Amino acid sequence: MGDDLGHHRLVVAANRGPVSFHDDPEGRPVVTRGAGGLVTVLTDMLRKHHGLWVAAAQSPEEVRLAGTGEPVEVTLGGDRYRVRYIAPDAETFDKYYNIVANPMLWFVQHYLWDLGRHPDIGVSEIDAWRNGYLVVNRMFAEAVLDEVGGDDRAGGTGTIGDRSVVLLHDYHLYQVAPQVRLRAPRVFLQQFVHIPWAQSDYWRVLPREIREAVFSGLLANDIVAFHTAHYVDNFLQGCVDVLDLEVDARRRTVFVGGREVWVRAYPVSIDPATLRDPAQDRRVLAEERELLARRRDHLVVRVDRLDLSKNVIRGFLAFDRFLDKHPEFKERITFLALLQPSREDVEEYVEYRRRVLRAVEQVNTKQGTTDWMPIDLRIQDNFPASLAAYRSYDVLFVNAIFDGMNLVAKEGSIVNRRNGVLILSENTGAFEELGSFCVPVNPFDIEEQADALHIALTMPTEKKRVLADQIKAVVERNSVDKWISAQFADIEAKLVERAAR
Amino acid sequence: MGDDLGHHRLVVAANRGPVSFHDDPEGRPVVTRGAGGLVTVLTDMLRKHHGLWVAAAQSPEEVRLAGTGEPVEVTLGGDRYRVRYIAPDAETFDKYYNIVANPMLWFVQHYLWDLGRHPDIGVSEIDAWRNGYLVVNRMFAEAVLDEVGGDDRAGGTGTIGDRSVVLLHDYHLYQVAPQVRLRAPRVFLQQFVHIPWAQSDYWRVLPREIREAVFSGLLANDIVAFHTAHYVDNFLQGCVDVLDLEVDARRRTVFVGGREVWVRAYPVSIDPATLRDPAQDRRVLAEERELLARRRDHLVVRVDRLDLSKNVIRGFLAFDRFLDKHPEFKERITFLALLQPSREDVEEYVEYRRRVLRAVEQVNTKQGTTDWMPIDLRIQDNFPASLAAYRSYDVLFVNAIFDGMNLVAKEGSIVNRRNGVLILSENTGAFEELGSFCVPVNPFDIEEQADALHIALTMPTEKKRVLADQIKAVVERNSVDKWISAQFADIEAKLVERAAR
Repeated sequence: MGDDLGHHRLVVAANRGPVSFHDDPEGRPVVTRGAGGLVTVLTDMLRKHHGLWVAAAQSPEEVRLAGTGEPVEVTLGGDRYRVRYIAPDAETFDKYYNIVANPMLWFVQHYLWDLGRHPDIGVSEIDAWRNGYLVVNRMFAEAVLDEVGGDDRAGGTGTIGDRSVVLLHDYHLYQVAPQVRLRAPRVFLQQFVHIPWAQSDYWRVLPREIREAVFSGLLANDIVAFHTAHYVDNFLQGCVDVLDLEVDARRRTVFVGGREVWVRAYPVSIDPATLRDPAQDRRVLAEERELLARRRDHLVVRVDRLDLSKNVIRGFLAFDRFLDKHPEFKERITFLALLQPSREDVEEYVEYRRRVLRAVEQVNTKQGTTDWMPIDLRIQDNFPASLAAYRSYDVLFVNAIFDGMNLVAKEGSIVNRRNGVLILSENTGAFEELGSFCVPVNPFDIEEQADALHIALTMPTEKKRVLADQIKAVVERNSVDKWISAQFADIEAKLVERAAR
Repeated sequence: MGDDLGHHRLVVAANRGPVSFHDDPEGRPVVTRGAGGLVTVLTDMLRKHHGLWVAAAQSPEEVRLAGTGEPVEVTLGGDRYRVRYIAPDAETFDKYYNIVANPMLWFVQHYLWDLGRHPDIGVSEIDAWRNGYLVVNRMFAEAVLDEVGGDDRAGGTGTIGDRSVVLLHDYHLYQVAPQVRLRAPRVFLQQFVHIPWAQSDYWRVLPREIREAVFSGLLANDIVAFHTAHYVDNFLQGCVDVLDLEVDARRRTVFVGGREVWVRAYPVSIDPATLRDPAQDRRVLAEERELLARRRDHLVVRVDRLDLSKNVIRGFLAFDRFLDKHPEFKERITFLALLQPSREDVEEYVEYRRRVLRAVEQVNTKQGTTDWMPIDLRIQDNFPASLAAYRSYDVLFVNAIFDGMNLVAKEGSIVNRRNGVLILSENTGAFEELGSFCVPVNPFDIEEQADALHIALTMPTEKKRVLADQIKAVVERNSVDKWISAQFADIEAKLVERAAR
């Protein structure tokens, strides 16, 4: 049930594609898997439900493929993909991606603006919206319409799109649904937002033109999907506050333009099967050997993208404070921080990286000894190393400021072999599922995070085992399969409801 | 109706008193009116409903008066006041005022934290809460209980406090009500929050201990009052999200511990009568002569406390942009900014003042000529100058980031004699009443603010007159008298409802 949309054509649209066409260092064209958690889960989805993926070209080779106007087929690791690329020019893409999506929308949805100073919305931001974000979204819509067979005339009806289900993904594509619906009103549209949904006051940071377009853009879908019930509530309230719409909070439905839009939560997850035994992977084993050779009594691990929202510095300050309060742990513990470089062409990220390095230097200089460096910071993109760290941690440290879901908490818990304890920020999406089985922390509270480390490190073995088992059980039960089937079940139900109207 | 609580004893508690006892420059003791908009409206209230005012001592003379343990009576400008001072030691007061109330609560309630960097909640913040804020709030509660005759035993009942109505004011006193209720359960408690009420996600910036105490502290009142319906909604939703309480949003009621707490909006206002003809005041006339002598064709005025939340810099950037877009206004317009110095002992405010000065220098250097300085910035505390500016403006510019009410918009509109246009931030409390009669702006949108200036300055005379008349009518109708009587009517109704239970 809910695992099959039968005779429906499936189209996925997301900023990044499932595979990456680029040149290797010797200049030969290669195809690799796309990077990022979103790509992984969507690939899982398309593995089971064949369909086309629309993505923005990221490399010269992908730009060339976009120029053909035809989908490209590729087989990789046993999976077959059909991908269709759109290729905005560099300036348009820059406006869409580097001004509007990041930071403007990302910072609003994570509450990261320093409102006393930023943003200053000016001509260039408005221009980036109109001539960047809207243009790229229109290109996505055109590609989708090409695939589902949209009408050239607005309001075209008939049976166009009748057998198509379009799945739009994330904050890059808030303006695709209205254009698809306009020209193919019968197509089924679902959009998934993978980052937090901020409450309405904070959306007011954006000009009325933009915030209203964001809400009404999403409402052009049949189903709007988030990771948590809390984001659903925030979105529903936002529809009232921003667009003055009628909402049925209990039925999680928004009434707009004679349609009923469902708003639902599907907590994304991982595929435990693919992670269960990384010891099969020689690269993981090599990393693990290296790790175990240097292992002290206690290992605290964090694995994150190097992003402001991940709250890396406060974690190090908390570790510093923990060592001050509990000097008996000195030389017996390592805080291993595996941070994946991110957006290194953006000044704010470069600056953040500098601040992270400075914090590590300070703590290591203050607390370290001739034989012991308390924080082992590695800025690298190395999944085998993450898996090795997952296997070996005593404490997994996740203190994000705000985070749509946080899959590290789930991955780590499945892979770990030591009944390690999860310290988890109450502002992550994962907290709705795992909050009862972790040591919860407020991400701004250094003292609480320091105390959480001590609680986790001194927890009785039996209690650790119980917690670790409970988390594993939750993640096994709510795997990515369930994430997909729950969405498909609702799509089927909504198709039935729509047909009956 | 609603203007008289008859035989009830009235006790007002607020951080600042209605009068100020201090030494003049020659060292002689003097009594002056207290400063600030809150003091003005509460003085209006106590002028009509005699009662006692509990306040924290601000000067050595007030500390001495606190030491007597007795209320002091003073007559000033025909009004009689009874004030009782509490006098925390300097360190305790500093924790309460300069760490917890400002910035911690102020920044949360105005969305001003730069969450990627601040706050770092640590021992000193927790200590400031426990050994500063809670202690001062306990002292307030003791003084209130002394006046209403509280029982020494917790849960004391009988008729204690039965004939008393206690009005607690603002974000300094979130922990007074629970202690008063504990020892005088029958006393009637109302608390008014004069600043915005942030939505629940943003309250999560504070440690659980503090945010839960803030909400449950307010809920120890019989009525919790705000300036706008939107803050009421935010508070109700916060009770669900933060404390998991049952709420009836339609009846604006929270159910807690067997009690029903009403949550209501009473938009504070001014007393138009006292402002209507400032031309009677020679100091105002002197300021006005000075102003008119230098007047150009167009005068834009802003009057604000020099506070980050007031958004002074973006206003100057918008003016700069306006001059770029409409050079025909050059040399024919002045932007007069009257900024009252604020919290000059706090580094963040000193830094903000520096940034404001720098912005003015830049705009004046870029746009100015030998004969013309576009921005006339005056950092001063001079109410007659504000009244003179109110009389003469063509445009009143209010672009606050977030603002509980903003009385400048109301004062200016009543005093102005030129059918001046109000440019008003949609994030002020005043916007709920005046939003239809102003040129609305998003405080972060420089371009919109620049365009708003042009719209306001080129508006047809007849339209300006209509808008100015409409604002005046709203403010006359919703004067401070109505603000007081509406609260008293609800207090009476709630007393009846409580008696019937």
